[in-house]
Amino acid sequence: MDITDLQDFVETVPFLRMLGMRLIDTEGGVTFAATIGSDFVLDGAVVHGGIVASLLDTAATFALIGASGHDWTTVDLRVDYLRPTPPGSVSVRGEVVRRGRTIGRSRAELVDADGKTSATAIATFVPNTE
Amino acid sequence: MDITDLQDFVETVPFLRMLGMRLIDTEGGVTFAATIGSDFVLDGAVVHGGIVASLLDTAATFALIGASGHDWTTVDLRVDYLRPTPPGSVSVRGEVVRRGRTIGRSRAELVDADGKTSATAIATFVPNTE
Amino acid sequence: MDITDLQDFVETVPFLRMLGMRLIDTEGGVTFAATIGSDFVLDGAVVHGGIVASLLDTAATFALIGASGHDWTTVDLRVDYLRPTPPGSVSVRGEVVRRGRTIGRSRAELVDADGKTSATAIATFVPNTE
Amino acid sequence: MDITDLQDFVETVPFLRMLGMRLIDTEGGVTFAATIGSDFVLDGAVVHGGIVASLLDTAATFALIGASGHDWTTVDLRVDYLRPTPPGSVSVRGEVVRRGRTIGRSRAELVDADGKTSATAIATFVPNTE
Repeated sequence: MDITDLQDFVETVPFLRMLGMRLIDTEGGVTFAATIGSDFVLDGAVVHGGIVASLLDTAATFALIGASGHDWTTVDLRVDYLRPTPPGSVSVRGEVVRRGRTIGRSRAELVDADGKTSATAIATFVPNTE
Repeated sequence: MDITDLQDFVETVPFLRMLGMRLIDTEGGVTFAATIGSDFVLDGAVVHGGIVASLLDTAATFALIGASGHDWTTVDLRVDYLRPTPPGSVSVRGEVVRRGRTIGRSRAELVDADGKTSATAIATFVPNTE
Repeated sequence: MDITDLQDFVETVPFLRMLGMRLIDTEGGVTFAATIGSDFVLDGAVVHGGIVASLLDTAATFALIGASGHDWTTVDLRVDYLRPTPPGSVSVRGEVVRRGRTIGRSRAELVDADGKTSATAIATFVPNTE
Repeated sequence: MDITDLQDFVETVPFLRMLGMRLIDTEGGVTFAATIGSDFVLDGAVVHGGIVASLLDTAATFALIGASGHDWTTVDLRVDYLRPTPPGSVSVRGEVVRRGRTIGRSRAELVDADGKTSATAIATFVPNTE
């Protein structure tokens, strides 16, 4: 799948549009830019951990979609929160760790506006080929 | 903290209001009702995994807040997706596994409109006592 | 598979014999007794975290084997260390969370000699039907 | 701590000697060689997942010990099994992801005799400064 097809897929989900997710690179993985507004912030200062998980899960899933050309379903997800993520511009990158016939694994990393890695994830997937 | 204080905390976060999170029980943990609209759905059929993670992380965090009276920050989170979650009414329950001085652990479970457990989580926290 | 078949399987692995793993119950899951000797202890006081993981992974796997009658391979494993495990007698119980055709999930819990839950795990498996 | 001090620490644990763990590098992390004998194998072919977890947990812990000069306790551990690990010579490398005052995070990777990454882990730690 090329970058336009993948972005079209993102556009079908209003939630991902709310996060301003834009696919900006597909070289050796997928990289999205996103913009996190104040609706998704706790105490006016820190992005909700579930939004961080949403960005990471999306990037990890699209890494597999981009590599395989078909959809995948998340089986389990581990997120490591390394530091608070401030709202604003972020980038999130997903890379395939291993793609098998029945199981896929990918990882993702969130970089905040200051260029710091604020969270990482690793997730297990099954192909969704219905 | 009583149920009103906890609900007031939830109300300060627009994202949690979008998910219609309402604290309905604080007996031996915290239970929220929520209503997941079409904005958070993939392919018109399944709730985005990041939203599932958001509900579980919120319930797990509030279990510790309710038990301790102070805030906690998620260090890491594991989500197990057991079956697809359809949109609509869900309930999500968080329970403290172990609360120490420097580390807290809690788990959460999401029950869908059909009464099925669609996802579970376990998470590690540190006290946020600033 | 009955309790004797499962115990025979355990006996084929010298490492599990070193841990004195004995299947003592198969009601609604599997429960093993084990005896952890000084070879597996750090600083003379605490069982190595990898041994805790070994007991939990074994119980989680056998819960699925017992329920399905065939072998399973661990895809990923999360262990939560809740308190230090002292050496000596322990019990470890595994229960199936959800068994699908292509993915299995089970959890396990380690109870130390003082009757305290010292660690828990949740793991994802694929059937091993070669 | 230098390489000799770290290896001396390993030598105090009989279990780690059974696995033949030898610290061979401390550049930007810690790398151990190990030799996994038939006692730790299932079906004569594959290393027990708990042994894989033991090697990864040890490397992840020593990465933090090496960087900080003091001991750390594992709070939680996620292991991803990417392919079966055959017995024999392996190497396992641990690297610090982030070291804070109250929480440490490190990752580890196991490379089998064929040069393939057979498993990875990420773990959360607290300082053990008693």
